[in-house]
Amino acid sequence: MYLEKINSPEDIKKFNTFELKALADEVRALIIETVKENGGHLASNLGTVELTIALFYVFDFSKDKIIFDVGHQSYAYKILTKRFSQISTIRTEGGISGFPDPTESSYDAFSVGHAGTSISAGLGFAYSRDKLKEDYNVINLVGDASFFNGENLEAITSKERKPNKFIVILNDNGMSISKNKNGLYKLVSKATVTKSYNAFNRFLNKIFGSWFLGTFLKKFKLFLKRSLSLNTFVDGLGLKYVGVFDGHNIKSLIKILTDIKESKNPTLLHVKTIKGKGYDNAEKDPSKFHGVSNNLSNSVNYFSSEISGILEEIYSSNNKICAITAGMEDGTGLTTFYKNHPNAVVDVGICEEYAVTLSAGMAISGTRPIVFIYSTFLQRGYDQIVHDVCLQNLPVIFCIDRAGLVGSDGKTHQGVFDLSYLTHIPNLTVIAPKDGKELKDALKVALNLNSPVAIRYPNGKGYKFETALQLDGTLSWEVLNRGEKITLLAVGPRMLNLALQVNEKFGSKLTIINARTVKPLDENILNLIKEDLIITLEENSEIGGFGSYVLKYYSDKNINAKVKVFGVKDEFIPHASVDSQLKFNGLTVENIINYINKGENHVQS
Amino acid sequence: MYLEKINSPEDIKKFNTFELKALADEVRALIIETVKENGGHLASNLGTVELTIALFYVFDFSKDKIIFDVGHQSYAYKILTKRFSQISTIRTEGGISGFPDPTESSYDAFSVGHAGTSISAGLGFAYSRDKLKEDYNVINLVGDASFFNGENLEAITSKERKPNKFIVILNDNGMSISKNKNGLYKLVSKATVTKSYNAFNRFLNKIFGSWFLGTFLKKFKLFLKRSLSLNTFVDGLGLKYVGVFDGHNIKSLIKILTDIKESKNPTLLHVKTIKGKGYDNAEKDPSKFHGVSNNLSNSVNYFSSEISGILEEIYSSNNKICAITAGMEDGTGLTTFYKNHPNAVVDVGICEEYAVTLSAGMAISGTRPIVFIYSTFLQRGYDQIVHDVCLQNLPVIFCIDRAGLVGSDGKTHQGVFDLSYLTHIPNLTVIAPKDGKELKDALKVALNLNSPVAIRYPNGKGYKFETALQLDGTLSWEVLNRGEKITLLAVGPRMLNLALQVNEKFGSKLTIINARTVKPLDENILNLIKEDLIITLEENSEIGGFGSYVLKYYSDKNINAKVKVFGVKDEFIPHASVDSQLKFNGLTVENIINYINKGENHVQS
Repeated sequence: MYLEKINSPEDIKKFNTFELKALADEVRALIIETVKENGGHLASNLGTVELTIALFYVFDFSKDKIIFDVGHQSYAYKILTKRFSQISTIRTEGGISGFPDPTESSYDAFSVGHAGTSISAGLGFAYSRDKLKEDYNVINLVGDASFFNGENLEAITSKERKPNKFIVILNDNGMSISKNKNGLYKLVSKATVTKSYNAFNRFLNKIFGSWFLGTFLKKFKLFLKRSLSLNTFVDGLGLKYVGVFDGHNIKSLIKILTDIKESKNPTLLHVKTIKGKGYDNAEKDPSKFHGVSNNLSNSVNYFSSEISGILEEIYSSNNKICAITAGMEDGTGLTTFYKNHPNAVVDVGICEEYAVTLSAGMAISGTRPIVFIYSTFLQRGYDQIVHDVCLQNLPVIFCIDRAGLVGSDGKTHQGVFDLSYLTHIPNLTVIAPKDGKELKDALKVALNLNSPVAIRYPNGKGYKFETALQLDGTLSWEVLNRGEKITLLAVGPRMLNLALQVNEKFGSKLTIINARTVKPLDENILNLIKEDLIITLEENSEIGGFGSYVLKYYSDKNINAKVKVFGVKDEFIPHASVDSQLKFNGLTVENIINYINKGENHVQS
Repeated sequence: MYLEKINSPEDIKKFNTFELKALADEVRALIIETVKENGGHLASNLGTVELTIALFYVFDFSKDKIIFDVGHQSYAYKILTKRFSQISTIRTEGGISGFPDPTESSYDAFSVGHAGTSISAGLGFAYSRDKLKEDYNVINLVGDASFFNGENLEAITSKERKPNKFIVILNDNGMSISKNKNGLYKLVSKATVTKSYNAFNRFLNKIFGSWFLGTFLKKFKLFLKRSLSLNTFVDGLGLKYVGVFDGHNIKSLIKILTDIKESKNPTLLHVKTIKGKGYDNAEKDPSKFHGVSNNLSNSVNYFSSEISGILEEIYSSNNKICAITAGMEDGTGLTTFYKNHPNAVVDVGICEEYAVTLSAGMAISGTRPIVFIYSTFLQRGYDQIVHDVCLQNLPVIFCIDRAGLVGSDGKTHQGVFDLSYLTHIPNLTVIAPKDGKELKDALKVALNLNSPVAIRYPNGKGYKFETALQLDGTLSWEVLNRGEKITLLAVGPRMLNLALQVNEKFGSKLTIINARTVKPLDENILNLIKEDLIITLEENSEIGGFGSYVLKYYSDKNINAKVKVFGVKDEFIPHASVDSQLKFNGLTVENIINYINKGENHVQS
């Protein structure tokens, strides 16, 4: 075991090439084993093992800074930075995070989880370093999918001169290139041991010419065409282009990284890696093995799994609908629908801003966009929801997946702000269906409205609920039990399930309401229950969400109601099971029963 | 008067070149006259007069769609689309808007106000058009500053094939190019009357070669270097590049636009215009005449005007601070400070996402970023505030200008959501100082905190307040008057002024509190006043802002307080004077007195 010989990353510098390769094998095996146990991002992490080892060989991350983009390629980095013994705890409560986190290790320079932040953050590091006259390298490791996120494009096209000792590594694992894998990479890696990048680039262009460009184009389909190559483009941004290198050849990576380090110029290093490298199934189907739960199965997300079927039914009577996703076709459940109706799905890549305004443009010109984005990623489109969609009152439908506590992905991915960032936007209807049937009803209601609608639903399994009242255009809430003087208003399936469990403990004496429309509120019901003790339950920040909106309603009406808000605490909630996260936030049967039992005594006047 | 002969834009097609030029002169004079009277965007509007007239000559905007980026270049378009008689009402209550607005005229295809949305929206139009088998042209008019906003970059680099009949006009009014104005443009405009763009491009490159590229580079400093030219880059994106054309030569513009229209290919037309064209002062100093109030003076914004002085004082004892702005150096009051300390200011252009994450990178690596962005534009950085700054609890300071009702810029620019999009973010302190002195105190308090702070303040004039208690690290509220049983909690100067006026009418019997920290709340004071009638006043949406947060506090503590929330209605508030907008939202002395006088009767139990 070479892994066990590593007390500090500096020990890696003592290994010879053979040992480094053996280390890579060990790290790869450990990642597969770990993800089998704990779930996580498999394919992306397997792709960067050799690159990570080569980086440790050349750099010293006790002072040099590496900023990952998205961060789902950082497992090898974690294993090799004194977290080997903790890797089995990854993504579990109290264990290490699945994403880089400076509060976890001083080796983690910057917290990430969303795409597109690394180059911006890296320029911030370089600014401080130069201003404070410090001396370290800044390295940004960016996958090809997030390279073209708008924030990265803003940072890389910025007009300021790029700082020295600033390295962007483009980790290119696009499948179209990997299919062309052949002698090219070996030749490339040999050619580049020279220190003259310019000479190398000239050589490369001369030897490979248009064929070389052709393989590029299949991947990027942009920036590059005919006589234009990526290196010229990148050079124009004030970054020296160096590439393409085989990201699995440790020896050549070490050589080129050493050259780049010594040159001190701002550089873009283009490496080609294979997503899922070393695990046959993942290599063959990297999308499937992008993020997996334990036993390498795709995690069960009840609502997402309903999407394609629902869209199929809607599409059969309304072919003006168009599903839009920002690089999350699989995750949001669109795969089957896309296969059947490729022209009714637009995947814009990891570009949430573009996705939202594109949908506004579609809606105002006569088609019916339905935008599928995770709650946490839709934060990127907040301004576009306000300024492009809602200000114009356009009939765009947002299907907001992973809304609520997300479990092991942790604090960068919690979907616990959307009710707070949406309910204050004029013209927007916000719906939180309890199950797939109600999701379908919500979509149908939304398609009949001539205004924007947000529909939010969580990850994880579904629940079996009775239906007391079908959701329709009246947007009425559903009373699942009528009891006495204590009312639970529950938003979303997990909260409704919780409310029903509490009710059971009280012998069905509580009033249980499926508060499925967060905006508008069901004022008839709020007026009916105004003298009850009202408990609101939501998987969203306690601040600015559903409960606050109910409080505001009664205040407006000068009704002196007793409302208690249960939701997510005013903290970033780390990785753990969803159940544990619910417990942490007091969203448990026991806690609510306690509140009800003690509540009356506590009320002051 | 040619203007008076135009009943419909189609009438423009009847004019000859001489008449079109005369029309341009009339439109230009009218714009200057109008902006002198009403204020507005002068320089950008003067730059696009000939281009707009040429567009009308070639296209038919009763069916073709033009999507402006930002929209502060649309006055000529408005004048020529049946709004000539209304132009004197622009930016005034009940009059036409200073920005394109489909609810105002069917000629306005898409509402805009923020930068970077046009190409995304335009692709949405083209999608619908092709899907619905309709037939019209989609034209995006984008200034060079907003062309490089991340959202435009996402849309223009998108991997889908660009639709036909999709035209992006890059309106390049960068000063560095205008200084090189010479024979080139005349030659270019002559050369391009041929329909063979390819031949033209070859010709252009041959004749002008590296010199031609050199002038480009001064402007863009990106994408382009050495053997690369913008046309190659743009061609790579699936847009045919055509340029550069003199944007003030109507005849040549008509010819090239006709060619582009007939070719039906997706095209990027690069035109060079002079910002402020035709008004000497504006040509000489277009920044100063970008947005002006009436009499062409720069509008008085009390808080912005304090900024440079405050920063100067802070910088004298802390040279680690760095001011960051997203293209708004003038507007946010940084000009003087920048002149004195160019290395302590970073202007990233209209890239709010990059600005916020850059600041996170700076803060984590030891410098002290202070980010100056308008409330409405900071909506673009919402995700970065959550995910990069607050999640890592980084000491970034946000100075949020134009927070509150903004007056004549209208609904796309209202700063009335920031308290709602900020207060639910963990770790963030939110301060609303009442005057420049308190703004300085707030910045000093913020610099002593090791966590993120947002400081919000409005546009317009300041007020003279007494100081009862200086703002310090305790973040206590300030009690300006202690009266009996009725308490007004006011956020920000205009609300505090309102509260004091109400108090005067009640013979100083009210309790008036400067609720200058919106988060955290001053719990000591809230506990002291819990039995009062409490009225909260904020220039922010009534939903999810300060008042809601106060309601939530009392709910948490099981305190049965009477709280009435006054704020901005759940609507988009159109252009009018700030006073009128306050009145529309019930934020008037009279309305609050009425509420207090009637309030007690209305309270139900």
